[in-house]
Amino acid sequence: MLIDGLQYANWSEKIFRQMREGGVDAVHVTICYHEMFRETVINIERWNRWFETYPDLICHAKTGDDVRAAKAAGRTAIVFGFQNCSPIEDDIGLIEICHSLGARFMQLTYNNQSLLATGAYEAEDTGLTRFGKQVVKEMNRVGLVIDMSHSAERSTLDAIEFSSRPIAITHANPHTWHPGLRNKSDTVLKALAQAGGMLGFSMYPHHLKGASECTLTSFCEMIARTADLMGVDHIGIGSDLCQDQPDSVVEWMRVGRWSKEIDYGEGSKDNAGFPPQPPWFGDNRDFGNIAMGLRDMGFGDDETDKVMGGNWLRFFDENFGPQ
Amino acid sequence: MLIDGLQYANWSEKIFRQMREGGVDAVHVTICYHEMFRETVINIERWNRWFETYPDLICHAKTGDDVRAAKAAGRTAIVFGFQNCSPIEDDIGLIEICHSLGARFMQLTYNNQSLLATGAYEAEDTGLTRFGKQVVKEMNRVGLVIDMSHSAERSTLDAIEFSSRPIAITHANPHTWHPGLRNKSDTVLKALAQAGGMLGFSMYPHHLKGASECTLTSFCEMIARTADLMGVDHIGIGSDLCQDQPDSVVEWMRVGRWSKEIDYGEGSKDNAGFPPQPPWFGDNRDFGNIAMGLRDMGFGDDETDKVMGGNWLRFFDENFGPQ
Repeated sequence: MLIDGLQYANWSEKIFRQMREGGVDAVHVTICYHEMFRETVINIERWNRWFETYPDLICHAKTGDDVRAAKAAGRTAIVFGFQNCSPIEDDIGLIEICHSLGARFMQLTYNNQSLLATGAYEAEDTGLTRFGKQVVKEMNRVGLVIDMSHSAERSTLDAIEFSSRPIAITHANPHTWHPGLRNKSDTVLKALAQAGGMLGFSMYPHHLKGASECTLTSFCEMIARTADLMGVDHIGIGSDLCQDQPDSVVEWMRVGRWSKEIDYGEGSKDNAGFPPQPPWFGDNRDFGNIAMGLRDMGFGDDETDKVMGGNWLRFFDENFGPQ
Repeated sequence: MLIDGLQYANWSEKIFRQMREGGVDAVHVTICYHEMFRETVINIERWNRWFETYPDLICHAKTGDDVRAAKAAGRTAIVFGFQNCSPIEDDIGLIEICHSLGARFMQLTYNNQSLLATGAYEAEDTGLTRFGKQVVKEMNRVGLVIDMSHSAERSTLDAIEFSSRPIAITHANPHTWHPGLRNKSDTVLKALAQAGGMLGFSMYPHHLKGASECTLTSFCEMIARTADLMGVDHIGIGSDLCQDQPDSVVEWMRVGRWSKEIDYGEGSKDNAGFPPQPPWFGDNRDFGNIAMGLRDMGFGDDETDKVMGGNWLRFFDENFGPQ
């Protein structure tokens, strides 16, 4: 089982074919950042047309069993997620609506303070808000997974504690390996694992030690150390692959409509666009390199399978839909 | 099996309890008239809260099997429908979105010309529009049933012919029995049955011979004659029960936001509000009267069961969802 815990590509037939070439069984795809509900619906419509146009390559998955059926049929299962809570606006009822439309992950924040919690880039982290607590409860009820990849430390620990079900950090790496602003502390990673949660390892260069020059060996060593910290059942891949996106998209991700001034996020004025991928992970055909790197690092076949997708599948089974 | 093919009540715990008292296994409920998409979503949120609040009384049904499961669990299955095409606005992609949210019936028109077809109250009936033909095709693809209860004759015949799947007239009676403006001609009823469609008999007084004074015998005689015309497999109940609604709601149904002048629809200036129900059908506890009336009229037990719900269940099985 090969599952990627996060991508936001400039989707195309080419990319869907690369998923099949790479034997990718499922991908959690970001379908919006700062879009309000009505705009999110338009993004789902676009996915529905892709499902209709490429039925031999991709299909929409709402459950772990949908992923198994996709694998059996030789298709890549697509799981919808939001990188911000904009789609639910200020309306708790929209959580169930979005779940009915297929959403299975939602970040409570994207870098900034949201109505729910604090993002990783704010100076002050006040934890879950009043609305945030109600939303966590409702997400638990319907089976929409809380994702804290872009959230600040206290808010993340709050969410882990307040949520009655495991949460996810779909795309980030340990801060001890590379002190990227939104890579996660050992405190967070241990609490995440203890609550049954999942970490997806990111191959986005700003999250990597050495950025685009990061070696496969360094990446796999980091995975091995994180397996020691969290246990091998709580880790997976969340590549954060932004394939074929124009640089205008990273600007949308960072600034949305909340600022008239450019914010460079994890980048800088001199390095504002999407950074080049490391040579060992350029697109969906390269997951085999990581599996190979894990085996070279001493992971057994069974452990490698868990990290490459088995853990995500179990997590999907347990956390998509009502308990 | 007891299924009502249309209601638009002022829903409440009282009414849900009456459904259980009356042994009603499923109801197709109108969730909007002139609401645009975003307003429709708010109406669905309201239903979601009712499902959460009254899990022992009602549940949401998207398939015939959901109706069977509801019956087995002693609940009334609720099927969503639209009485106008306002929820899809001018966007064909919203058809699949609405289907994902549970919509299973949509009228192409509500009395007036719509973007899709002509309503029963227009002077000129131009049949299906260009957009209308695309919508019928898309409704066929996803399994959203076309309902022509409030449509004009040519548009209705067009829809029956152009649709690759059976359509429904969920709430209307034969024009030969009572020449109400939107009761249906024998031509329409025969074409509907020949294409595998369904007619739901309305107990809304404006559709009844003698209005609120209509007798149960007259109503059941009409059903017997329609069974002769259409076949006993193509008829059911579509009560059009508007229980507990204030008269402001019938004004909303008739005028929406399309006119600043009052339009009295099937009523008149002197009789503008909801007319009183006939004594033999006041609410959901009274379906037994109709079953009794049918048996008195000579319908066998098997035929009575078909008319009271078996035909709708078969129609749900065959027409909700992709083929």
